[in-house]
Amino acid sequence: SVPFEPSDHPHRRYNPLLQEWVLVSPHRARRPWQGQQDEPDQSVLPTYDESCYLCPGNTRINGEVNPAFAGTFVFTNDFAALQPDTPDSASSDPLFRYESEQGCSRVICFSPDHSKTLPLLTNEERVGVVKCWMAQTAELGESYQWVQVFENKGAMMGCSNPHPHGQVWAQRHLPTQAARKQASFAEYYQQHQRALLLDYAEREIAVKERVVCSNKDWLVVVPYWAAWPFETLLLPRFSVSSLADLSETQARNLAIIVGEITSKYDNLFNTSFPYSMGWHSQPFDDKAHPEWGLHAHFFPPLLRSASVRKFMVGYEMMAEAQRDLTPEQAARQLQALSATHYKEAGQ
Amino acid sequence: SVPFEPSDHPHRRYNPLLQEWVLVSPHRARRPWQGQQDEPDQSVLPTYDESCYLCPGNTRINGEVNPAFAGTFVFTNDFAALQPDTPDSASSDPLFRYESEQGCSRVICFSPDHSKTLPLLTNEERVGVVKCWMAQTAELGESYQWVQVFENKGAMMGCSNPHPHGQVWAQRHLPTQAARKQASFAEYYQQHQRALLLDYAEREIAVKERVVCSNKDWLVVVPYWAAWPFETLLLPRFSVSSLADLSETQARNLAIIVGEITSKYDNLFNTSFPYSMGWHSQPFDDKAHPEWGLHAHFFPPLLRSASVRKFMVGYEMMAEAQRDLTPEQAARQLQALSATHYKEAGQ
Ligand SMILES: O=P(O)(O)O[C@H]1O[C@H](CO)[C@@H](O)[C@H](O)[C@H]1O
Ligand SMILES: O=P(O)(O)O[C@H]1O[C@H](CO)[C@@H](O)[C@H](O)[C@H]1O
Repeated sequence: SVPFEPSDHPHRRYNPLLQEWVLVSPHRARRPWQGQQDEPDQSVLPTYDESCYLCPGNTRINGEVNPAFAGTFVFTNDFAALQPDTPDSASSDPLFRYESEQGCSRVICFSPDHSKTLPLLTNEERVGVVKCWMAQTAELGESYQWVQVFENKGAMMGCSNPHPHGQVWAQRHLPTQAARKQASFAEYYQQHQRALLLDYAEREIAVKERVVCSNKDWLVVVPYWAAWPFETLLLPRFSVSSLADLSETQARNLAIIVGEITSKYDNLFNTSFPYSMGWHSQPFDDKAHPEWGLHAHFFPPLLRSASVRKFMVGYEMMAEAQRDLTPEQAARQLQALSATHYKEAGQ
Repeated sequence: SVPFEPSDHPHRRYNPLLQEWVLVSPHRARRPWQGQQDEPDQSVLPTYDESCYLCPGNTRINGEVNPAFAGTFVFTNDFAALQPDTPDSASSDPLFRYESEQGCSRVICFSPDHSKTLPLLTNEERVGVVKCWMAQTAELGESYQWVQVFENKGAMMGCSNPHPHGQVWAQRHLPTQAARKQASFAEYYQQHQRALLLDYAEREIAVKERVVCSNKDWLVVVPYWAAWPFETLLLPRFSVSSLADLSETQARNLAIIVGEITSKYDNLFNTSFPYSMGWHSQPFDDKAHPEWGLHAHFFPPLLRSASVRKFMVGYEMMAEAQRDLTPEQAARQLQALSATHYKEAGQ
């Protein structure tokens, strides 16, 4: 009988952060696709759009006027999913359990320029974005246990405005994924007296196979347990549990590697690559968190081209995530791409 | 200070099946939407399409010819994500853990008529679909621990062919969600000596508020912990843990209620309503499963109209599911709709 070959044979890989499995079906990407074709985003945007509620000087839906900002600009979401003043209430009925939630939702504009995206900013401008993420995390971590910095990029990822922006939602309780990670990190630390993600980063650097790019302080890998086709994990190569604790140099090197991975993404299908990305800093509960490793996820939906995406539906919703190529195959494609953006390569 | 009001104030609800939370933000649905507009499926389909690989008599990609089937028709997926003969292999390295997987993936055509959908079949034809789900579950449960019957409906849900069809994937190991439910059901049974979902069905019937439709044997509710805007849970009102164990009458009444909920869905926005649906029968491990309640989920993405959907991105991917109207508001809309399909209402 033939020996098991991970690049040929269906198998499951374990995500030790969320304690869940992903089904890897290496040859599914070959099947013909007659399903939905998404419109790739080829529109050339103006640097200022008078109908955009994020451009400087424009009036938002609630009547407020955006200032003439030069770098980043943060404001409270006009339709916030979380509010600071929700009254306390809870029920522990096992079948009808709830708890009221307090928190806030803010929008973070990355640039006054309507036409830019993270990879198209100068590194100096990107350092401004990193410092804004850091400052928001530090500030909101004083009032809330969880601070979720994230970016939805592209219409395919539910982004309702192409003006370069992300969000930060902060809340009193640990959300489901944060609580799962806290449990996983604590369990690993108890067993190994080491932070799980520091061990993981070291081993990926040694193996090289899944490393997409790296610098002195940071590392981007396609994680061994990636669910989305070109999913990556952005990890520090030093011990740190919160965005709020980065040094000046670490922040600058982070801006560089964010520019590299987002440029590689755009270069993959010569399109403005859609994704959701987000940062996981430690829970802010006044305890030390040596078990927690700061990290960011990039979850991009595209699979084969700028218009054919992976759908996480049916089996994936009912059973577990499933992928159509191996993480190693995805890593090889990302490794081969230039870290200079295709729109800037000719200049 | 104002008292907590679940239809006004952000809160979290607990899903006791998957042991995860969902953030409910009652007033987010009011925000303006300038993002992606999906194309509603308004195409009028022919009863036979010569380019369809699921129509009777047509040749599939691998050269096989579909028979001239009259009711349902089942065949092995030409690009199966699971294979029966994968060699055994595993590693328990905590950071690089995997196991090879054996299984199979089949396609289930619901009807020879290319233009139909579940609600547009006659009830007799739908009984045929229910019996096919039952027979597949019984057969594959003899070889595999998990049998996942599901349907992806609509291009928005990754369905690559409008010919009415679902799938069944069976596999040796319990997938993540199955394992989580098994743990939840077992825990509840140990504490209460009752099946969680039987207790839940009784309480929802008593409260009525979230019940969408019901008959002697079955019940459709918007679950208290629904994540998708119009998500529903289809539950038996009797003790049963597997699709394979339904009686003739229970199967016929199931066909009726499947026709009702899918007609209500189509009537909500006068469109062929996209969704992923799937059945969770007990694990087939030669043990009795009194703790396990058979059930089906419907996960539909539409939020406000045939073209504006909910995106589970960003915060939802990184933290936990979030919804923009309460389950009770969704239930009220579904309750008010006719159970006769809008295309048949005039006849
Ligand atoms: O097998 P299909 O219908 O071609 O594919 C569809 O269902 C599968 C199972 O849910 C998913 O993995 C695919 O992403 C989806 O496009
Ligand atoms: O707040 P936005 O950008 O309007 O909305 C987007 O991000 C939110 C947070 O991930 C999601 O809940 C919405 O479904 C999505 O459309």
